[in-house]
Amino acid sequence: MARYRPSGEAPYGKRGGFPAPVLRAADRSSTFRKMARSLLHASTGRYDRQLELWVVIDTFEEHCWQDVISAELLELYSHYKRPIGVGPRAALLAIDLYELAYQGGPRPVSEVSRTYPSSCGEYAYKAIEPTQRLFAAARAAGLPVLYTTSDSRADSKPSLIRATKRQGASKDPSLFAIRPEFAPLPGDTVITKQRASAFFGTPLVAHLTLLGVQTVIVCGESTSGCVRASTTDGYSYGFHMVMAEECCFDRSPMSHKLSLFDLHHKYADVMHTDDIVAHLEGLALKETV
Amino acid sequence: MARYRPSGEAPYGKRGGFPAPVLRAADRSSTFRKMARSLLHASTGRYDRQLELWVVIDTFEEHCWQDVISAELLELYSHYKRPIGVGPRAALLAIDLYELAYQGGPRPVSEVSRTYPSSCGEYAYKAIEPTQRLFAAARAAGLPVLYTTSDSRADSKPSLIRATKRQGASKDPSLFAIRPEFAPLPGDTVITKQRASAFFGTPLVAHLTLLGVQTVIVCGESTSGCVRASTTDGYSYGFHMVMAEECCFDRSPMSHKLSLFDLHHKYADVMHTDDIVAHLEGLALKETV
Amino acid sequence: MARYRPSGEAPYGKRGGFPAPVLRAADRSSTFRKMARSLLHASTGRYDRQLELWVVIDTFEEHCWQDVISAELLELYSHYKRPIGVGPRAALLAIDLYELAYQGGPRPVSEVSRTYPSSCGEYAYKAIEPTQRLFAAARAAGLPVLYTTSDSRADSKPSLIRATKRQGASKDPSLFAIRPEFAPLPGDTVITKQRASAFFGTPLVAHLTLLGVQTVIVCGESTSGCVRASTTDGYSYGFHMVMAEECCFDRSPMSHKLSLFDLHHKYADVMHTDDIVAHLEGLALKETV
Amino acid sequence: MARYRPSGEAPYGKRGGFPAPVLRAADRSSTFRKMARSLLHASTGRYDRQLELWVVIDTFEEHCWQDVISAELLELYSHYKRPIGVGPRAALLAIDLYELAYQGGPRPVSEVSRTYPSSCGEYAYKAIEPTQRLFAAARAAGLPVLYTTSDSRADSKPSLIRATKRQGASKDPSLFAIRPEFAPLPGDTVITKQRASAFFGTPLVAHLTLLGVQTVIVCGESTSGCVRASTTDGYSYGFHMVMAEECCFDRSPMSHKLSLFDLHHKYADVMHTDDIVAHLEGLALKETV
Repeated sequence: MARYRPSGEAPYGKRGGFPAPVLRAADRSSTFRKMARSLLHASTGRYDRQLELWVVIDTFEEHCWQDVISAELLELYSHYKRPIGVGPRAALLAIDLYELAYQGGPRPVSEVSRTYPSSCGEYAYKAIEPTQRLFAAARAAGLPVLYTTSDSRADSKPSLIRATKRQGASKDPSLFAIRPEFAPLPGDTVITKQRASAFFGTPLVAHLTLLGVQTVIVCGESTSGCVRASTTDGYSYGFHMVMAEECCFDRSPMSHKLSLFDLHHKYADVMHTDDIVAHLEGLALKETV
Repeated sequence: MARYRPSGEAPYGKRGGFPAPVLRAADRSSTFRKMARSLLHASTGRYDRQLELWVVIDTFEEHCWQDVISAELLELYSHYKRPIGVGPRAALLAIDLYELAYQGGPRPVSEVSRTYPSSCGEYAYKAIEPTQRLFAAARAAGLPVLYTTSDSRADSKPSLIRATKRQGASKDPSLFAIRPEFAPLPGDTVITKQRASAFFGTPLVAHLTLLGVQTVIVCGESTSGCVRASTTDGYSYGFHMVMAEECCFDRSPMSHKLSLFDLHHKYADVMHTDDIVAHLEGLALKETV
Repeated sequence: MARYRPSGEAPYGKRGGFPAPVLRAADRSSTFRKMARSLLHASTGRYDRQLELWVVIDTFEEHCWQDVISAELLELYSHYKRPIGVGPRAALLAIDLYELAYQGGPRPVSEVSRTYPSSCGEYAYKAIEPTQRLFAAARAAGLPVLYTTSDSRADSKPSLIRATKRQGASKDPSLFAIRPEFAPLPGDTVITKQRASAFFGTPLVAHLTLLGVQTVIVCGESTSGCVRASTTDGYSYGFHMVMAEECCFDRSPMSHKLSLFDLHHKYADVMHTDDIVAHLEGLALKETV
Repeated sequence: MARYRPSGEAPYGKRGGFPAPVLRAADRSSTFRKMARSLLHASTGRYDRQLELWVVIDTFEEHCWQDVISAELLELYSHYKRPIGVGPRAALLAIDLYELAYQGGPRPVSEVSRTYPSSCGEYAYKAIEPTQRLFAAARAAGLPVLYTTSDSRADSKPSLIRATKRQGASKDPSLFAIRPEFAPLPGDTVITKQRASAFFGTPLVAHLTLLGVQTVIVCGESTSGCVRASTTDGYSYGFHMVMAEECCFDRSPMSHKLSLFDLHHKYADVMHTDDIVAHLEGLALKETV
């Protein structure tokens, strides 16, 4: 059952910062989403990015890491519990959704990695459907959409300045094209980067500031590499970072789960894609009323 | 005579970026300010940072540099002409308004510099009154107020990491206290820095992002040093930079004027303090109606 | 048995970059250390930062994560295997070795965390001895020593700009004093920071560049938090990052091991403290011959 | 007449920082250059970046700004006087030497600017010969060579993120090709940027750190725009910045001179191209002995 209640306090103070969350929902059931939508529908109808949803604290640990994190460790991290949710003025940041991560098809990573050492195999393909839904909701709600991919231009010296210390031959530039399922549209921004973080050595922060963005919704790969580095940096820069759990992936489920666990407690709100999509649908509804 | 007209287009596109300016004023006469206030007064009364004023292009070059910039140079810079104004979600950034700049009293710099080589002398004192008005208006309109001063902690190695290559003995830390006329209030932020730019090696961008700031109104010293470096960086980060002409100062009028000229054309909107104050009073009126 | 062989190639090319490693050692036994020292001793005697040791690839995975990383995952990460070692022009960076991490004494974290939620308990105390040896060797070899601690000055708004999303009351500034065992000496640098990374919002990169540093040896806490963020950033900035395994610690052994595993493969050379100390002793010997 | 004398002290302390300058030359005559070369020739013959030349303080103000800076202003800036010179581990940074700056040919800017508002006209062409000499000397001495140009890729949104507030139609990407006289060679690095500073939103600092660079020799345009912003940032990052006076240019001589004046005193060593070339020739001689 969904319980709604007014939020007691805004996360960043009264003036200038994030607005007070208007309501919180106890679960992410369809009931919650329906109620959220009707509430939003019943509001003034004027588009207002200030109205945000915050998921209550009860479901704070209901995520993919539950099977690898011990009760004792959860207890140690209890001081990080807090309401979570999509903040105001959101943008979508899609990290490294390029062909290289899908090489070899939807097979186990241990199989594809012999031939395609950078492929995330089955995990990449499993994330396609939720990521498409996330993109659709973000576009419908009018969110700016930004991508990262690798800078493979020879003049940039991609063999000297690399995302990680991975050894190996340089890559065919065509492998850094964005996967067709998420192809950029006119008006989107594509950032090329040479390090793991989408913020390092790129003008990403300038794009976000010019767009008035305060919340960055993250999807892509790899969770323990570029996604983690970008999310950590985004928090440092002052953005409210939201991670779409089912839309992030890694070559290793263990690395995926533990990085999400760390990030959720320290720097970001890891949310289920359904909850983010429901929230964005609410924004879209408000815009069109 | 003041002419008001609807703005044709927003500076940063339709979606997510800066809002379309609602009106522009042809001059900065008291008529303009009165009309601006009455217009704002007549509006919904709900505080709305989206409503901004833009000064028309006709007065673009009516600034202190007119006596040192030739007509030929103005012609070369005609491609930079554009409407200017205070943008949305503004904060006030006061750069290095510390005691060191006021040493020796309101006397010519050539006199005080023998004993106090960092003093801006009479120029520092002349800027006190307009800067106090700017602070008052910013506080009345609820703008976040941020300061910079030098990091003089011994552990920070201020003799190694310095704002400029100026030679000389290290300074008494008390000289980096903010001048009493502009003393920080509880809730204000004071950033300590070691380089010229308020953004370099400081968390300033994180403060601004967390506060949702998009426009930074700059005052302080020196125009050709820390103010210029900070304003250039702020533009790079994506903030709309506004400079209060009469509230910026330098040890040399020539350096002051030429840096303002460069900055106004390339990176910032140099505005008369009166215009900024009128705009902020408009915001404050709207908030209290 | 130790095998020495000339290194085939420099990691960063012939011109301007890192020098070619002169020799590699197959293990980290006392034999290796003795041989390394005598070799260095026998060399010209002129201090030369260009002469570096590189540990051979055979011991690449002989680290603390072996009991939590599956053979399958190791296989997936085999593409990261490479010679590792301390690079040229090293500095020591000690991250957050402040009192807060030692509160409650050398007891299990699950016990101390009830009263002292930020303490690393027994793990903090276990790291004291190796960290003291690391400091001694670094100082004997003349390495620059830099520390980080939290910026707890009220004007910096430490409650707004925080390292992580941890909830809780603000801290007594005295808890951010460096632990006496590692107390800064005159000439050391102490960087105060507000985010996890030692590089974010601080002038650390300027200090390192001015000192001519190319290699940063990291110790401190927490491995999965500030140490990880700093090491990732250091790699992005272009520094050769070395982590002293036994001198990094975390509240959770699991988080410690998995972050070291990630960092070792992607961004840093995780080395045993003994190997780093042996290398630094070699440098010191050369300097004093 | 050239006077040589040992330097009293290193600019950045004894340990780890910049080395003590070995000698200083009183002027930039051919005598100086010959003596410098023979001294270098007589040294060990082993290439040693530690050996650097420092031009004495007597010629500190002998630069192009002498006809626009008053004696009174020079007096105010006397606290910035210091020995200057090329520091250790130098790289060459060529800023925006792209076709756009040369449009319309070697004619007065006032003429070409009607058709080509970004052209530096005759000033661009006048700088070609000294810049070619600077490139030749840098390449002969084995310095890394890095370029900047504009990022004109549509996905980077060059119309949103621009170097300055200049109004006008977007540019043909071919106008951002490097001028043939200075065409990049294999192994050179070309950084694309969207803001004025070569450091903002680019991985330039990572390239320089990986190459072990401590000194950056700057040439290109415009002196008051991208060159100034890059030089200011480079100083902040901790690099020793050297500007080749005759190889920097601007659309306005006034802006050129005043920015060089500001930069020379605050952040950089402005040197005559002949002096830099003589120094680099000395390095090259040492390398080949």
